[in-house]
Amino acid sequence: MQPQIYLLSDGTGITAETLARTLITQFEGLHPGWHLRPFVRGPQQLDELFERMRAGPQPALAVATFADAELRQQLRQCPIPVLDIFSDHLEQLEQVFGRKAESVSGRAHGIGDIARYDRRIEALNFTLAHDDGLATGDVGHAEVVLMGVSRSGKTPTCLYLAMNYGMFAANYPLIPEDLRGDTRLPGSLRGLRNRLLGLVISPERLADIREGRRPGSRYASLPQCRAECLAIDEFLFRERIPRLDVTHLSVEEIATRVRAELA
Amino acid sequence: MQPQIYLLSDGTGITAETLARTLITQFEGLHPGWHLRPFVRGPQQLDELFERMRAGPQPALAVATFADAELRQQLRQCPIPVLDIFSDHLEQLEQVFGRKAESVSGRAHGIGDIARYDRRIEALNFTLAHDDGLATGDVGHAEVVLMGVSRSGKTPTCLYLAMNYGMFAANYPLIPEDLRGDTRLPGSLRGLRNRLLGLVISPERLADIREGRRPGSRYASLPQCRAECLAIDEFLFRERIPRLDVTHLSVEEIATRVRAELA
Repeated sequence: MQPQIYLLSDGTGITAETLARTLITQFEGLHPGWHLRPFVRGPQQLDELFERMRAGPQPALAVATFADAELRQQLRQCPIPVLDIFSDHLEQLEQVFGRKAESVSGRAHGIGDIARYDRRIEALNFTLAHDDGLATGDVGHAEVVLMGVSRSGKTPTCLYLAMNYGMFAANYPLIPEDLRGDTRLPGSLRGLRNRLLGLVISPERLADIREGRRPGSRYASLPQCRAECLAIDEFLFRERIPRLDVTHLSVEEIATRVRAELA
Repeated sequence: MQPQIYLLSDGTGITAETLARTLITQFEGLHPGWHLRPFVRGPQQLDELFERMRAGPQPALAVATFADAELRQQLRQCPIPVLDIFSDHLEQLEQVFGRKAESVSGRAHGIGDIARYDRRIEALNFTLAHDDGLATGDVGHAEVVLMGVSRSGKTPTCLYLAMNYGMFAANYPLIPEDLRGDTRLPGSLRGLRNRLLGLVISPERLADIREGRRPGSRYASLPQCRAECLAIDEFLFRERIPRLDVTHLSVEEIATRVRAELA
């Protein structure tokens, strides 16, 4: 019997879900039923959820991030085991910081500081506008410019960095014509040398990814992928641009390495 | 003295950072120094980090997500207080699930299940291709189509849904010409009625956002925003499309409500 996991929050529940899914990875083959219950805003709503948990299949677990102290209190009556994230950890933080925590709902993933929020959206707009090279003139604002062949992960990584960290991330695709033996860095990127990073990938993985996009095409063929991977290797070496091998990395892992590289 | 927070992980540290930043929101005015230390892979590396923590400013706190059992063991020698997420919670999960947790690093935000990972990237490509209406013919594959005026949050929300949940999210911008009194739903969207959602926003917030993009333009003027907001209101009513007021919502909150709406 696969377990049921209830994600309870007075906010979005994103933190509860992130933590729960992370913990679950340590139980291979477990495929819980997920029940996302965000924006719980009162005791009655929580009581109704308790009723459903009681009536639902077992085993079941609740993972809760209630900022509201009364809802946390009420969690003690929960009919199934609970990971009560705020109760478990806020006290320890209070000791370290030498002050009391507040109990304000919806702060973690709400708009919060509007200037900071607007910057994230601005970063996303910047990244979308610079998704395919140097379309507009303000690439100089980029905090990072990812270079690589088509389908090496530049676009998803840039979007991830912009969305989650408000990072102005541009990408510069290197197409076959760019990769002849004498190709140099475009002038607009020469002033950004310390923000350039090349994504390299094995020809086999690249061919796999491209095959999913354009099955049977020359673009997806292994010889074509080999030629492009070799050419970008030479280009990055020639221009002394640092490289990151993304063959076995997820977007999250690439983004984390980019942040570490820039820190 | 602002506290220092070390985020330690043998993976990306994304879960540790998410949790730490969530907890920190309950201490207003606290601006910790953040030290991201992902991909810790051995005892020597961790020992070096302990040294730096010892030498660094106090107060300090470590938030750790080590899947590796030996690194967790070593955490007991950490010179500053630690939130050891895996140790704190895995045991409780073991009891509920009736089995032992594994100790495998890098599962939470690695590629993991490659079919599931590729689907997220595919969803992102779909969303990018359908960012501005119905460019290609396969909008029928959309799991959700967000409708709204320019700058109502459609694009960031769609990208968030695709990136994080592998959801095929399209957006259909309603431009002033679309919003005359007799405008009907485009034919290609009529078969998708139960997947349509209108994002509505107050004219004042809309004018603010647009002003940031095109200062002093007619596009950003309050009368123009008022007219568009009124027109989309009428359009959504006429077509009986459910609506979500996003005036005070972040991308994460909109995305969460969209998921709840579809569940």
